Amino acid sequence: MSKSKAIRILGMGKYLPERVSSSALEIKYGIPHGWSVGHSGVETRHQIDKESCGFMGARAAEKAIENANITLADIDLLISASASFDYPLPNQATMIKNEIENSDNYSFPAITIDSTCLSFVAAFDFAARMLDGAQYKTILVVTSEISSKGINTDNWETTTLFGDAAVAAVLTFEPNSHSRFIKGAFQTFSEGLYDTIIEGGGIVNPPKEKPYDPILHSFKMNGKNLLRMAIEKIPEFLNDFFSDLPITIEEVDAIIPHQASKSGLMIFKKLYRFKEGQVLETLSKYGNCIAASIPLTLLDGIECGQIKRGDTCLLSGTSAGFSIGGILIKY
Amino acid sequence: MSKSKAIRILGMGKYLPERVSSSALEIKYGIPHGWSVGHSGVETRHQIDKESCGFMGARAAEKAIENANITLADIDLLISASASFDYPLPNQATMIKNEIENSDNYSFPAITIDSTCLSFVAAFDFAARMLDGAQYKTILVVTSEISSKGINTDNWETTTLFGDAAVAAVLTFEPNSHSRFIKGAFQTFSEGLYDTIIEGGGIVNPPKEKPYDPILHSFKMNGKNLLRMAIEKIPEFLNDFFSDLPITIEEVDAIIPHQASKSGLMIFKKLYRFKEGQVLETLSKYGNCIAASIPLTLLDGIECGQIKRGDTCLLSGTSAGFSIGGILIKY
Repeated sequence: MSKSKAIRILGMGKYLPERVSSSALEIKYGIPHGWSVGHSGVETRHQIDKESCGFMGARAAEKAIENANITLADIDLLISASASFDYPLPNQATMIKNEIENSDNYSFPAITIDSTCLSFVAAFDFAARMLDGAQYKTILVVTSEISSKGINTDNWETTTLFGDAAVAAVLTFEPNSHSRFIKGAFQTFSEGLYDTIIEGGGIVNPPKEKPYDPILHSFKMNGKNLLRMAIEKIPEFLNDFFSDLPITIEEVDAIIPHQASKSGLMIFKKLYRFKEGQVLETLSKYGNCIAASIPLTLLDGIECGQIKRGDTCLLSGTSAGFSIGGILIKY
Repeated sequence: MSKSKAIRILGMGKYLPERVSSSALEIKYGIPHGWSVGHSGVETRHQIDKESCGFMGARAAEKAIENANITLADIDLLISASASFDYPLPNQATMIKNEIENSDNYSFPAITIDSTCLSFVAAFDFAARMLDGAQYKTILVVTSEISSKGINTDNWETTTLFGDAAVAAVLTFEPNSHSRFIKGAFQTFSEGLYDTIIEGGGIVNPPKEKPYDPILHSFKMNGKNLLRMAIEKIPEFLNDFFSDLPITIEEVDAIIPHQASKSGLMIFKKLYRFKEGQVLETLSKYGNCIAASIPLTLLDGIECGQIKRGDTCLLSGTSAGFSIGGILIKY
């Protein structure tokens, strides 16, 4: 077992754009009434009006900094941990930094980590390893996702499933803290690459050669293949993850899975004998917010008092790739 | 001073698409003969025919693995460290992994780090901190950049300046090695965000709402502002970088700057009293290859015998953002 490290979530913050009910979406796109709750399990989600990922991320970051009771001067590194981006270049982290009020006075680096839906979890893992109490005492991780601009609204499944949200966390190395980064691990099975993809808009289908096409330039997923891979790979991954730990997954205080889909969550919960409420769910109110789902669910658990200091939390999920990953922390 | 760590570049590899001379480009785009060498300082660069970033990165990775005398089974993590990407989703690291021969048999994670032109340097820094000889013994960093698809060919400066290339490095933690990761540091001044940008193709100007426009969807840079910022910020950054080190920048064996532009390299060299050949340059033969320039120049120095085991090397440059960064290693 790897040694645990005194990493503490000092504060978190979120930004949610306007709430949109499923019935409003159903009316707008000619989807039968009730389809969303029945198929996607999503009752409400938030969607942007004019916000950018940078704007939302900056607002979440400012709240996290306030919640942590620190200032911008304390930040040693900003990591943007998202799949969506405002501009193809420069990196999204710079865009978020630029939108944070007063950030021009600070030169802390802004670097992007992308592991699609697992970006926040991967960035937390990287940050926990980088935090050394010397060069890196405090790292700000910001996840800001806008899915509503990249969806083909003829596709009812994706139209009703996804939501927009931004969440930020201030992570610190505190030798005397009881908080802990216990373990992190990731796997990528790249044979699943084409099962979750936006095909248009990069080097393979560049804007110059491929004009807008709702299929080519929208998010596509092969839900069946993804579920098959998840069912096959998740138990193996989690068995391996807990094999060198002194606790089992069923003994973890709070399980915070990616809110990928209704069926994904259902299947995951059936794999183990979890207690009522042990697995946190926010899919019905926020939808699948890409990499923001996991930290948003964590923050919800903290805000409603379900997660307390000292609780063990497993943040885990799958992501486009196909990847699986997770971190175990003591909050 | 931060403690140095026994990190070793075990092997490197590159992939270069077809070489294109400046005169061929000048004829193709109606640029006066000799303009490229005179203005950009670039005599030849490489440009893709049908290659993708994933294809090029995978070929470079396979060569690095062979050069390091290891196998895919030894890889604990693949980091894609590039600004360009094949698809907006999933992350580019997955695309590279998928293109590596036989990679389906291995589940090592594939995660993307983007710090635009400094991506390789940032990924090296992150990897050096993650390598622990336990969970992470060997990390493969792959930088694969294709600029030729995102350039407005009416803009002579960018048309002649940029090149395509992929480079990979196998990094290991070897307690008994004389190789060292000595230091790494980065800064981001996000007021320079709009001085180097591709505006179209993300959330702010999404494909659905903004049809292709050669200005909006091409790489743009405000060279004057960038040079001004570089002249102001680089000396401060480097003075600070070396302030807690036992050597000065002039005592470093090999200085490997980002090959950003002819004037950028000239100004940088005048800041210090470097010896002839101490600053490695590949701009004239490869052009500016975004994040691939620094590792390509490092590999060139190793291949031609200019960099030997035990030499100190400074990998440093500026990137869109505006960011400055560098790592000091003992090769």
